[in-house]
Amino acid sequence: MATNRVARLVKRPRGMVTRDIFDIRDEPVPEPGEGEFRVKLSHISLDPAMRGWMNDARSYVEPVKLGDVMRALAVGRVEASRNPEFKEGDAVSGRFGVQQFAISDGKGVAKIDETLAPMPTWLGGLGMPGLTAYFGLLEVARPQAGETVVVSAASGAVGQVVGQLAKLKGCRAVGIAGGAEKCRLLTEDFGFDAAVDYKAGDIAGQLKAACPDGIDVDFENVGGDIFDTVLTQMNPFGRIALCGLISSYNATELPPGPKNIRFVLTMRLRMQGFIVFDFARRYGEATAALAGWLKEGKLKFIEDVREGGIDAYPDVLNLLYTSGNRGKLVLKV
Amino acid sequence: MATNRVARLVKRPRGMVTRDIFDIRDEPVPEPGEGEFRVKLSHISLDPAMRGWMNDARSYVEPVKLGDVMRALAVGRVEASRNPEFKEGDAVSGRFGVQQFAISDGKGVAKIDETLAPMPTWLGGLGMPGLTAYFGLLEVARPQAGETVVVSAASGAVGQVVGQLAKLKGCRAVGIAGGAEKCRLLTEDFGFDAAVDYKAGDIAGQLKAACPDGIDVDFENVGGDIFDTVLTQMNPFGRIALCGLISSYNATELPPGPKNIRFVLTMRLRMQGFIVFDFARRYGEATAALAGWLKEGKLKFIEDVREGGIDAYPDVLNLLYTSGNRGKLVLKV
Repeated sequence: MATNRVARLVKRPRGMVTRDIFDIRDEPVPEPGEGEFRVKLSHISLDPAMRGWMNDARSYVEPVKLGDVMRALAVGRVEASRNPEFKEGDAVSGRFGVQQFAISDGKGVAKIDETLAPMPTWLGGLGMPGLTAYFGLLEVARPQAGETVVVSAASGAVGQVVGQLAKLKGCRAVGIAGGAEKCRLLTEDFGFDAAVDYKAGDIAGQLKAACPDGIDVDFENVGGDIFDTVLTQMNPFGRIALCGLISSYNATELPPGPKNIRFVLTMRLRMQGFIVFDFARRYGEATAALAGWLKEGKLKFIEDVREGGIDAYPDVLNLLYTSGNRGKLVLKV
Repeated sequence: MATNRVARLVKRPRGMVTRDIFDIRDEPVPEPGEGEFRVKLSHISLDPAMRGWMNDARSYVEPVKLGDVMRALAVGRVEASRNPEFKEGDAVSGRFGVQQFAISDGKGVAKIDETLAPMPTWLGGLGMPGLTAYFGLLEVARPQAGETVVVSAASGAVGQVVGQLAKLKGCRAVGIAGGAEKCRLLTEDFGFDAAVDYKAGDIAGQLKAACPDGIDVDFENVGGDIFDTVLTQMNPFGRIALCGLISSYNATELPPGPKNIRFVLTMRLRMQGFIVFDFARRYGEATAALAGWLKEGKLKFIEDVREGGIDAYPDVLNLLYTSGNRGKLVLKV
């Protein structure tokens, strides 16, 4: 009998994610009911936000319940369907969870055009991270041509798109990343104007050299000390699109907040948090724009696809929090 | 010979303001040159921002130079004029400094209508604090009728106006202040719906009781722990008008920032710093609106006028940072 390998969340994590907070086991492959279909997953998206979904805390979505399949975006192929809109063989993306097979009624599921880009890209530049970059930069931060845009975690799934969109909009794009190899990726592959290597010391000096006219827009993915340094170099009326605070997601006690918050006041900054889900009605528009730029060769996306299947999920996820990935992190099922 | 008592800044402060950072002395009364006039000051405004003006740091205005008369807003009467637009006897307000007599060419000086309100009110509700409340609440935070507005330092010069404007706009107004007497002032004199006494403990519980539907707008004057508590109770898409961070102005080392900054992200908050000077072109409109509401009895302003003249400046200023004032703090010259 065919089985479905499933990762169920059974404990709340404390600090870094560990193997024991999941029950990873074989279950029967589920059968679709009337109006439903079954997806055989090919790739699962690893997202920094996953850590937050595991906490029992007030947030923008309900926490994953103990006992439930761990929430995850994924792509795959319909292999059995009792829903007329989704046929066997259709490539789809949706919130399918950390498992091999998922049942869906089609809600929140999008069809994928594999002629445009391979499956993993639909979890990266043409998926949620690309949409996050698009709306966060263009709708929340709203940079003007000639302005300087800084993005942290710049070689990551969202950051790589932010920098390239900033360039498309006529801005100076500066990326912050860890290590010479990632910084090389930013300037040579993604076309950033400059890169700051936070592992190389003197972040303030590097940032100053990379942003001689100050910083107009900060697309913040990280928080912590680097964000604190960015704050001191923001120009008057600058904007901070607060997308993530990955440096604190695994903290067991709340770390100190940005001590340079006074620059928000004195420089009249606008710091605005956003969640890509709030822009759901406009996903079509954004995906079309991103796909168009991809076709024209104006955007490129890099994914980091890891092997190991469902059992590898906890370890592969942790790569995000240890700067171990290179581009959009994806788990091959 | 008549003398001009003057407070010149001669040292940068460290921590609380002390008498020795000023040279307070008698100088000759200055004579106006062509196009200038002399003002005899009656009242000097004590503003939390003064502490920042004394620091040699990047900010929204140049620091006061060592040796210069301490910067201050003040009101007074023209007593000698070689400027056709300002006549002897005119009541005026401007950036006249901490001294008895000031020379001005009229730039940034406004005439005062004493029939509308007495001199000190033109440093409070009809002066910079009133304008700060007006633009910060109505232009930056933009509350909608039915929303809950929280303001810290609520009985102070700005806070008292913010709460009353929130009520005028159909909002629930909740003030945070220190001590039962100030809290009574908020609800009984200024018409706030509820008050939170931060000296009475369990701020989170008090705030929750005062804001049963959560917080939509925070008009932040204080920062620190209270702000951190407010952050946890903000509603999705709430706005924070960042007006001041008085709890940290005298810190000798940067205190930790808001550790609950993640709520800005998860609740998609907009935190925006502002400085009233940026709205200078619209002062006329705002003053007219505030004066109109004052005439109609829809606004009231409370000032705390202190005696002691120029020599009392350092001690009276410190009342702001020790919660020692009751309403807008003004020094009588």
